[in-house]
Amino acid sequence: MKKSTILVTAALWLTTGLLPISVQAQDLAPIQLNAPSKTRGCDIMQALQQRQSNRALESTPVNLQDLSDLLWAANGINRPEIGKKTAPSAMNSQDVDIYILNEDGCYRYDALGNTLQPIAKGDQRSLVEGNRPSGAPLILVLTADMSKYRNYKAGDDTNNKHLYEMGALDAGIVSQNISLFCAAAGLGTVPRAGMNKEALKEALKLSPSQVLWLNHPIGKVK
Amino acid sequence: MKKSTILVTAALWLTTGLLPISVQAQDLAPIQLNAPSKTRGCDIMQALQQRQSNRALESTPVNLQDLSDLLWAANGINRPEIGKKTAPSAMNSQDVDIYILNEDGCYRYDALGNTLQPIAKGDQRSLVEGNRPSGAPLILVLTADMSKYRNYKAGDDTNNKHLYEMGALDAGIVSQNISLFCAAAGLGTVPRAGMNKEALKEALKLSPSQVLWLNHPIGKVK
Repeated sequence: MKKSTILVTAALWLTTGLLPISVQAQDLAPIQLNAPSKTRGCDIMQALQQRQSNRALESTPVNLQDLSDLLWAANGINRPEIGKKTAPSAMNSQDVDIYILNEDGCYRYDALGNTLQPIAKGDQRSLVEGNRPSGAPLILVLTADMSKYRNYKAGDDTNNKHLYEMGALDAGIVSQNISLFCAAAGLGTVPRAGMNKEALKEALKLSPSQVLWLNHPIGKVK
Repeated sequence: MKKSTILVTAALWLTTGLLPISVQAQDLAPIQLNAPSKTRGCDIMQALQQRQSNRALESTPVNLQDLSDLLWAANGINRPEIGKKTAPSAMNSQDVDIYILNEDGCYRYDALGNTLQPIAKGDQRSLVEGNRPSGAPLILVLTADMSKYRNYKAGDDTNNKHLYEMGALDAGIVSQNISLFCAAAGLGTVPRAGMNKEALKEALKLSPSQVLWLNHPIGKVK
């Protein structure tokens, strides 16, 4: 149990005299990410040369600087004055969200605040890993939110078909930022479309307009 | 008219005594690309920092080395011993093709041979540019071929829905390689989904299983 979890649990125990089960499920604290390092010492062409799919990873945790750099590379804000990002998106919808699943729980990457916002406590990695686990300490899950487009109409698949396609293209774009960063940073990853989508929608508390597109296990290469 | 075009035309004129109209339409020669430069002097994080969408470009041609490097970065072979590429693809289908449109005509990038294979003579850039031309000397068009998947069934949209989605994700992945290379190389680009798809299918001689996903104008930033 993490120190922050213990403290919150202990405080509630003292004030209520009851083990706060329902609060425990939501007592993950936000995590402040580091400022991204703007150099990794790897040329873009070398990153492309080293890009490959890695399906078996070490379980060693990814350190905070690597995670901070990875998320900024994936879909961070590279022009704060106009709020624009490393990944383009159709009509600047910024429809892609990145969820982070680790041993402790699930978080959402907040690019503006450069934080991980807690979604739920508990290890949900098995919902992504399925029958062919990578062993990764960390999994990124990419969603695209069709409601970010002005002409989205809830429940109208015909109207939303084009937005659905834009979401897939935008998720692919973010995915390659992840793959290239990992190649540059000596981390392994692979984009995968398979996951338990129904269970993940619930675990990540997604809205009906958010589509699960890809996931990336992240870790040191075995 | 290019030197090679003139020579082919002249030779046929001499042997047949007729201006070979039908041959003229196909007399673009293949173009051998240069070996890719494996360093561009730009850190991956700097490329991500510089990534932005550029919609107005200079008409100055892109030189052969930049074009060679760009195409290798986009979807070139980075592991010749196993034929694998800078861009991952679902089930290693290698479903994405890149078409190159310039003033002379249309070509397809042949990653294995590191060549541009001619498709048709004539400037077709207006089919991509539409009402908001970038002025780019060069446009890349990305398609994904569903027939590269074993379970593709021609004309069966329900069966092919998943493959269609994989194609969009894969095209997004190649697109970001293009955007990051351009950011590193001082070239401008933007991924765009809009284009005259019906006319392009004909101009590029696409098969019914090839889906047009994105295009990228390429040129120096104005």
